[in-house]
Amino acid sequence: MPIPKSEIQNPKSKIAPAPSPQPPAPLLVVGAVAFDSVRTPYGEAENILGGAATYLAVTASWFAPVRVVAVVGDDLGEEYLRVFHDRGIDTAGLVRAPGKTFRWSGEYTGDMNEARTLETHLNVFERFSPTLPGSYLDSEFVFLGNIDPVLQLHVRRQLPQARLAGLDSMNYWIKGKPEELKKALAEVDILVINETEARMLSGISNLKKAAEVIRKMGPSTLVIKRGEHGVMLFSERGIFSAPAFPLDEVHDPTGAGDSFAGGFMGYLAKAGEFSDGQLRRAVIYGSVMASYAVEEFGLSRLLRLTPKEIEARYREFKTLTHFDA
Amino acid sequence: MPIPKSEIQNPKSKIAPAPSPQPPAPLLVVGAVAFDSVRTPYGEAENILGGAATYLAVTASWFAPVRVVAVVGDDLGEEYLRVFHDRGIDTAGLVRAPGKTFRWSGEYTGDMNEARTLETHLNVFERFSPTLPGSYLDSEFVFLGNIDPVLQLHVRRQLPQARLAGLDSMNYWIKGKPEELKKALAEVDILVINETEARMLSGISNLKKAAEVIRKMGPSTLVIKRGEHGVMLFSERGIFSAPAFPLDEVHDPTGAGDSFAGGFMGYLAKAGEFSDGQLRRAVIYGSVMASYAVEEFGLSRLLRLTPKEIEARYREFKTLTHFDA
Repeated sequence: MPIPKSEIQNPKSKIAPAPSPQPPAPLLVVGAVAFDSVRTPYGEAENILGGAATYLAVTASWFAPVRVVAVVGDDLGEEYLRVFHDRGIDTAGLVRAPGKTFRWSGEYTGDMNEARTLETHLNVFERFSPTLPGSYLDSEFVFLGNIDPVLQLHVRRQLPQARLAGLDSMNYWIKGKPEELKKALAEVDILVINETEARMLSGISNLKKAAEVIRKMGPSTLVIKRGEHGVMLFSERGIFSAPAFPLDEVHDPTGAGDSFAGGFMGYLAKAGEFSDGQLRRAVIYGSVMASYAVEEFGLSRLLRLTPKEIEARYREFKTLTHFDA
Repeated sequence: MPIPKSEIQNPKSKIAPAPSPQPPAPLLVVGAVAFDSVRTPYGEAENILGGAATYLAVTASWFAPVRVVAVVGDDLGEEYLRVFHDRGIDTAGLVRAPGKTFRWSGEYTGDMNEARTLETHLNVFERFSPTLPGSYLDSEFVFLGNIDPVLQLHVRRQLPQARLAGLDSMNYWIKGKPEELKKALAEVDILVINETEARMLSGISNLKKAAEVIRKMGPSTLVIKRGEHGVMLFSERGIFSAPAFPLDEVHDPTGAGDSFAGGFMGYLAKAGEFSDGQLRRAVIYGSVMASYAVEEFGLSRLLRLTPKEIEARYREFKTLTHFDA
């Protein structure tokens, strides 16, 4: 809660000093840094930089300072690390291990709402159990990208000062490690998952009822991603529903969900408070980032965004959804 | 365009006289009146009053006077006609023919987004080719429910004074009578169809591009219904996207699309003008009516609505979608 103005007035003067603008608190993200190979109806790309942590970090970096926790192999050269550094992302928690970087390949066909995974090679990720660098331990904002819930909890517990913790997961963990996932869920504030995952996690088809059940597992706020059908936010303040941005062409959906989460959490770190109004704005900023992410392959579009473009699309979302009361 | 106030001021006085409130112009709807038999996970109902014209007329009647054009058999008794009369619906265009009333049976399973039709008996509908009663010929608003496009055009051409004509269609006609449908489309202002139908009609998977192609076929405004994912409106003024109302339980989706169209067109008849703002409000009122329609089997919920409930859900839609600019 913001402190009422009357309590922070300078007692020596009737004019309160202008508050010095608070720099946004850093957001810590954890997840995979990967080499992706992707095929879509618009073309293909081989061994491009990807992974949840990468999309999360790059998109969030447009809003707040970002700290990344991940592991890479010795095949990930300086030119890739520059992507993080150029965006001002703190890579103190990016560990280099002997071996190969995580590799994923997949393809999208038809309505492109879901990827068909062709290959997954965990490589260095298999033995990853991060101990956070000391400089990360004061992180107030954290997003646990889609990795083993045991690792998610391991990271979460190293951050006792976190004011807001978010988590993403997937079918693989919901089915394979349900108990571990439930333990992790009990220690976060926000869960960001897709429609199918929400139904699987709750065992309920109706999303409104599913959300009630999931929110009792721990996260007071639930964000359900519905691909081209937008996003729903469930919190103690009710439901917010936002459409996806209608695009002429979706070239590569890879990273859309992580770009949403990065924009969403990055905006909340920037805002510094979690009122219903700010959560709703965060959903729109997340949707803005996801809509840009899919316009081109990999990170291309995200890396040459401008703050002006981000604000312009936010306003377009307003035009897209507004009607008079 | 509304006339600027300065031009309608009374020259003899500085105070303009209060404009006498215009009663809404009547909306003419054409389509099937049917006996429906429906099975859903929540139960079943046998031979209940249904059909596109019925849902259109009942939902629109909450906004404007309604004139209905349809044919019924000699098995549809007075107790069914009372449903129309109790809602003040003009049935001068409801023809009684020897034989049985149109019958449809279907079931919904799983996510209930699409009905599986079990049986369709056109019965008296097979020989239906309506000549409109003289009292209908001045209709300024018309909605051509989902029937043979040849009949839709036949009705449309009897209404030269129509200021706004809407049309619904379905896969059956898009595949079976594409040329006839295109002729009908060329003479309407608004097309209301679902997502799958829009893709089939345009041959394009991307909805934004599909909408461009369809709008060139005639209707300057296109409304795409996406079931539980809401509605998109495409017009020369851009795109408007509205979510569906999140319900705990959908008991019977039958008539949801027609209830949307009835609320949408009824509101436009009431508003009397088709600005972008009014079209957007009409989409929400349509969504309100569809959300009530599916709460119970058949017409039950729609028949005992109150204006207060309609306005309350409209405001809930505002809460559901609002975010600060």
